[in-house]
Amino acid sequence: MINFNIKPLSTQYLSQLETTVNSKTKPIGALGQLEDLALQLGLIQSQALTQAVDIIRIDNPTMLVFAGDHGIAKHSVSIAPSAVTRQMVLNFLAGGAAINCFCRVNNIALKVIDTGILEPIRAEELPPKHGFFKQRIAAGTQDFSALPAMTLGQVEQGLAYGAAIAMQEILQGCNLLLLGEMGIGNTSAASAIMALLLNLSPQSCVGEGTGINPEQLLLKQQLISQAVERVHTQNTDDASLQPLSPKAVMAEVGGFEIVQMVGAILASAQANTPIVIDGFIVSVAALLAVKMYPNTREYLVFSHQSQEHAHQLVLTHLEAKPLLDLGLRLGEGTGAALALPLLHAAASFYNDMASFESAGVTV
Amino acid sequence: MINFNIKPLSTQYLSQLETTVNSKTKPIGALGQLEDLALQLGLIQSQALTQAVDIIRIDNPTMLVFAGDHGIAKHSVSIAPSAVTRQMVLNFLAGGAAINCFCRVNNIALKVIDTGILEPIRAEELPPKHGFFKQRIAAGTQDFSALPAMTLGQVEQGLAYGAAIAMQEILQGCNLLLLGEMGIGNTSAASAIMALLLNLSPQSCVGEGTGINPEQLLLKQQLISQAVERVHTQNTDDASLQPLSPKAVMAEVGGFEIVQMVGAILASAQANTPIVIDGFIVSVAALLAVKMYPNTREYLVFSHQSQEHAHQLVLTHLEAKPLLDLGLRLGEGTGAALALPLLHAAASFYNDMASFESAGVTV
Repeated sequence: MINFNIKPLSTQYLSQLETTVNSKTKPIGALGQLEDLALQLGLIQSQALTQAVDIIRIDNPTMLVFAGDHGIAKHSVSIAPSAVTRQMVLNFLAGGAAINCFCRVNNIALKVIDTGILEPIRAEELPPKHGFFKQRIAAGTQDFSALPAMTLGQVEQGLAYGAAIAMQEILQGCNLLLLGEMGIGNTSAASAIMALLLNLSPQSCVGEGTGINPEQLLLKQQLISQAVERVHTQNTDDASLQPLSPKAVMAEVGGFEIVQMVGAILASAQANTPIVIDGFIVSVAALLAVKMYPNTREYLVFSHQSQEHAHQLVLTHLEAKPLLDLGLRLGEGTGAALALPLLHAAASFYNDMASFESAGVTV
Repeated sequence: MINFNIKPLSTQYLSQLETTVNSKTKPIGALGQLEDLALQLGLIQSQALTQAVDIIRIDNPTMLVFAGDHGIAKHSVSIAPSAVTRQMVLNFLAGGAAINCFCRVNNIALKVIDTGILEPIRAEELPPKHGFFKQRIAAGTQDFSALPAMTLGQVEQGLAYGAAIAMQEILQGCNLLLLGEMGIGNTSAASAIMALLLNLSPQSCVGEGTGINPEQLLLKQQLISQAVERVHTQNTDDASLQPLSPKAVMAEVGGFEIVQMVGAILASAQANTPIVIDGFIVSVAALLAVKMYPNTREYLVFSHQSQEHAHQLVLTHLEAKPLLDLGLRLGEGTGAALALPLLHAAASFYNDMASFESAGVTV
């Protein structure tokens, strides 16, 4: 069993960082959310270096896209069949997906992790240069409407795998991780997870994903209700008094890519490394991580408000206001990749902007 | 008198561009506002080249920051005195302001235009390499609470100057302009302009600018009410039936930087060049431009929702949903500069993303 040691973010350098921000040639607070972002990144790096930093560094930002398949997808609760998960992984490896484009324009390294897609990628399918990692747990999860998605042992394995890839990137010089995912059926898993974790009605947690029709939406709600009932019946006589542990929730209704993202988030927070959270699915992974280790919240940057309405409920619970709201509903880490320039901008004003004194401005 | 010829954006290439967008490996519409942005940029470039473009180009994006002083500022309706306009211009030239940082991180060329600050920049104050342009109309406008801010001749001069700098950049290979401004007192001018143009109460058009106190806010409202009354009394017996022309409004309550931005917007639209609009002040310049030539609207990209509440009224009138909402209230073009990576991302997915066919994805 993997355990994490996630420290609360020390505020001992806060006043020094605030003084720096407030000395810049702008009215107090005039850079809005970018000021909060600079303080958050500055605090994390100050804690790592045990001194208030003059320079916020963003080194080798790396996008980890975790892919996995879902037993629930056999009920056609998505616009696409499970085969598309694998096809999109090949698209990522060939450089043709939206996340490839956004990583290219924003200078983000892209790594793709197979956490358990139905059919493995064969060696001859890999391009000569690739950022592909095989961290398979199984060939897709079980259909969680009927039985647990995975075993508790597989949850532990997934957390360890996710932590390992994050640690590897951090040890190689990345100090900012961005997370994305691909997995046909994974909005269903995310909805079921949040329903169980936050004790919400399945209806309020289920949305249209990437664009299903009303019949599919109804079926999706029914399957998730069924799963929630199954879990409650099996686990306790009085569901409202005994919330399941995050690990039990992952075993019951999770996905391999979601579990590995939780591991990656926890390992990054433990290593004083901020993590940029994408849309609905990654936010649910963040919710799991925060439920396991509440201090994790302070290391998270929320990039994007998804079109999926349930996302807002998760964000509210996490007290998060994402940087972007562009009507995206794609996943892959696209929202996180699009937000990175705002982190560079926050670092840049903190690092390079003149002070009133140095610029001779007399406000 | 300068006249512009601004064509409606031709939609003859729209279906071809939409086919390209919809063939990409993503659910239809899943990239939200970025899809609208790609179509807008694609249509503008297709019109220029008289064929549907395969590649959306963003070449030498250039930020023009127009600076000017305002007679109204002598009433202390801002957090800073007029002297700060000049100090901030020197800060721009030295590279120390927020807009310098954001242009650097996003690879935007920055040009600064003196449209009429109180005291001119002296040659010996210019750094060896600079993007400074002297397009002075006068040493600040008149106090518009008591008399017209400028003459109609100065309005014409300002439009021509603004058009000239935009044309110059476009001729030198820039195909995307971003606009910003600096001018102590210019939220007062912007509020008065929108009150007159949209026939709104001064109260609904006045806000806290970069952070004035309640007494200053009251004074600001009184001065703008006084100006609106003065203008209505002088120009018509029945104000509600005879809205002033945009040029008359600029002469009565405008600012030199605002007038030159209007000229720059109109010249850019005429030259098939999209213009990225910053916050409140630049949006009011856009409103003037659209009132003069309604087709201009189709060439505008709105970057940022300002904290200034009156901004929302202007955006609603222009049917604009900006790309960012980060709580900024700084001006300088900061919102526009921060949005540029999203334009690059829109171009990138349009240009480089695989189609379902090319990627072998079977949705």
